Amino acid sequence: MHALRFHGPKDLRVEQVPRPRPQAGQVLIEVEWCGICGTDLHEFLAGPIFIPGADRPHPLTGEVPPVVMGHEFAGTVVEVAEEVTDVAVGDVVAVEPLLRCDTCAQCRAGRYNICESGGVYGLAGWGGGLAEYCAVDRRNVHVLPPGMSAEVGALVEPLAVAWHAMIQSGFRAGQTALVIGAGPIGLALLLCLKAAGARWIGVSEPSTARRAMATSFGADAVFDPRSDDVVRHARAAVDGVGPHVSFDASGLPVTLNAALAAVRPTGTAFNVAIWEQSAPIDMALLLGGERTLRSGLCYAGDYPAVIAALADGRIDPTAMITARIELTDVVEHGFTELVDNKDRHIKILVRPGGDAGTGSSAH
Amino acid sequence: MHALRFHGPKDLRVEQVPRPRPQAGQVLIEVEWCGICGTDLHEFLAGPIFIPGADRPHPLTGEVPPVVMGHEFAGTVVEVAEEVTDVAVGDVVAVEPLLRCDTCAQCRAGRYNICESGGVYGLAGWGGGLAEYCAVDRRNVHVLPPGMSAEVGALVEPLAVAWHAMIQSGFRAGQTALVIGAGPIGLALLLCLKAAGARWIGVSEPSTARRAMATSFGADAVFDPRSDDVVRHARAAVDGVGPHVSFDASGLPVTLNAALAAVRPTGTAFNVAIWEQSAPIDMALLLGGERTLRSGLCYAGDYPAVIAALADGRIDPTAMITARIELTDVVEHGFTELVDNKDRHIKILVRPGGDAGTGSSAH
Repeated sequence: MHALRFHGPKDLRVEQVPRPRPQAGQVLIEVEWCGICGTDLHEFLAGPIFIPGADRPHPLTGEVPPVVMGHEFAGTVVEVAEEVTDVAVGDVVAVEPLLRCDTCAQCRAGRYNICESGGVYGLAGWGGGLAEYCAVDRRNVHVLPPGMSAEVGALVEPLAVAWHAMIQSGFRAGQTALVIGAGPIGLALLLCLKAAGARWIGVSEPSTARRAMATSFGADAVFDPRSDDVVRHARAAVDGVGPHVSFDASGLPVTLNAALAAVRPTGTAFNVAIWEQSAPIDMALLLGGERTLRSGLCYAGDYPAVIAALADGRIDPTAMITARIELTDVVEHGFTELVDNKDRHIKILVRPGGDAGTGSSAH
Repeated sequence: MHALRFHGPKDLRVEQVPRPRPQAGQVLIEVEWCGICGTDLHEFLAGPIFIPGADRPHPLTGEVPPVVMGHEFAGTVVEVAEEVTDVAVGDVVAVEPLLRCDTCAQCRAGRYNICESGGVYGLAGWGGGLAEYCAVDRRNVHVLPPGMSAEVGALVEPLAVAWHAMIQSGFRAGQTALVIGAGPIGLALLLCLKAAGARWIGVSEPSTARRAMATSFGADAVFDPRSDDVVRHARAAVDGVGPHVSFDASGLPVTLNAALAAVRPTGTAFNVAIWEQSAPIDMALLLGGERTLRSGLCYAGDYPAVIAALADGRIDPTAMITARIELTDVVEHGFTELVDNKDRHIKILVRPGGDAGTGSSAH
């Protein structure tokens, strides 16, 4: 089968590899759609980061590059191995790609997203979604309800990241939120917060195209941080004190501190960006307003809530898809396109099995 | 009467000033004991910080230096003005020194400690505890139960800072904690955590004398951060994952990040130090373990709980008092002594009315 494999930074190759064979307890999925994630771009540009290095095999998979990429995927079950009784051939499933050790304190407490030696299908080894087929453990698939497409299924993963952040932030229905950054996760947060009953959501984003997208997704106010005093506007918009929660989906010192400055006293600023270094935090914002700074990683137990919100229409994420491409084009029209023309895209979906249908038309 | 007034950095003067007259709704207190706080030392060395500057009168008091210092105090009510019906002459009271505007969103929600224009008796103006007398609003005094001395009453303030931090950290009985720094607030945290039913408390402190004090106050383990791997020890001591909560009472980048590193995944690291600049936070600790960073300021509604714990003996803080001095000696034997011989002292109490009894004997 064809698969996209990471060999090194700027060295991703679509190659012929053996089709995986599901082991006991696994299902084999024919991948229909797989999204390209910001994390994938980081690996492309500066990896290996979450991908294991040549001299440090992943603690769970034991693999080193080349590894198959892609962790935002959905498809159709085409083979069910022994010990699997509640998933059937033909089921359309979204993959929850987290690998876990099952023995550490975090896994034992159900917090497998912060497993001490955890990993992700599509980064850690054991295959991934940018391939025609992938064999995954039964617990890593969620059967989609009738009528829900694999295309929507491929968006469950980024939506679950946002949903998890929303839950961990302490947000509750009727409250208000500021989202900084309207990339895929920022927009996913907007969709989740609306689905969860937010009373007001502001979005700060320098890109005009992305601000327009945020407005079309239902943001109550959009701000351009290059010209607007976002903190002042957010405070003024919500009772003069600012929103209950704020999310930084940009990952810059200035945006993280803006999230802290904008949230009301006693509120929570939540980081959803990946940081590999220290961030200079304005401690006066924590002290003076008794604000809280939190951060989250992936999701744990959040897929069912997202799928339910998709099923009943509270979340309609299809406008997030800005291009559909084939696997053979994934480097040029996927990775390189996202690096070169970031503002034109939210989510590029890849169809590993061939015909991507509507082509790479941007919305 | 005599009072210690701040004129400028390194310029504190014991002076003759008019005795305050209580207004309607106030009581006049003859101060028996007043502690010197780390905040007072910062003002002495580098103020005005919380004290208003000569060109920026305090928004509540309208005062500029010179202002009377001292905010950790207790004494005897000697005059009760009109409108005060539930405090009597002769009552021994601890002063809760927070001033508030009563109109901002935080005051209206009962969080007067983060009042937008709040202040503190002894820093903001309207008098303070390093004086023979102080007139304060009725709501700023807590009548001590029979038999509780004003000496113990003067310690309620630092204990309330610690108690508030403990409550805000989410700590619950039966949990475990690491306290970094065994100065007055670190030791007060140790006393509060023990009173609240902690199962294990570790204390990290470079001073040998202060480690010994922490041990005598009941720490389950003490660490010297200059030679011990505190994070590793704290993790090993508590189920291999680390304590439920951690407190940084030192206020250095290295101690704040150690608090984050030592607390278990999903745990809360709580800052109780005053920061005036940014702190470099290792975001990987927040992300990878979904840890929370919080901070608190003073207290709001915490005095009754502290007084109750003192009354029933769950907290015995008298060993915190390392010297008792008279007001005439406050600069030399109080402020200067604390700067020069920090490790010898936890809390120096000042007796504004004269005879300090046991003198300046260090414990």
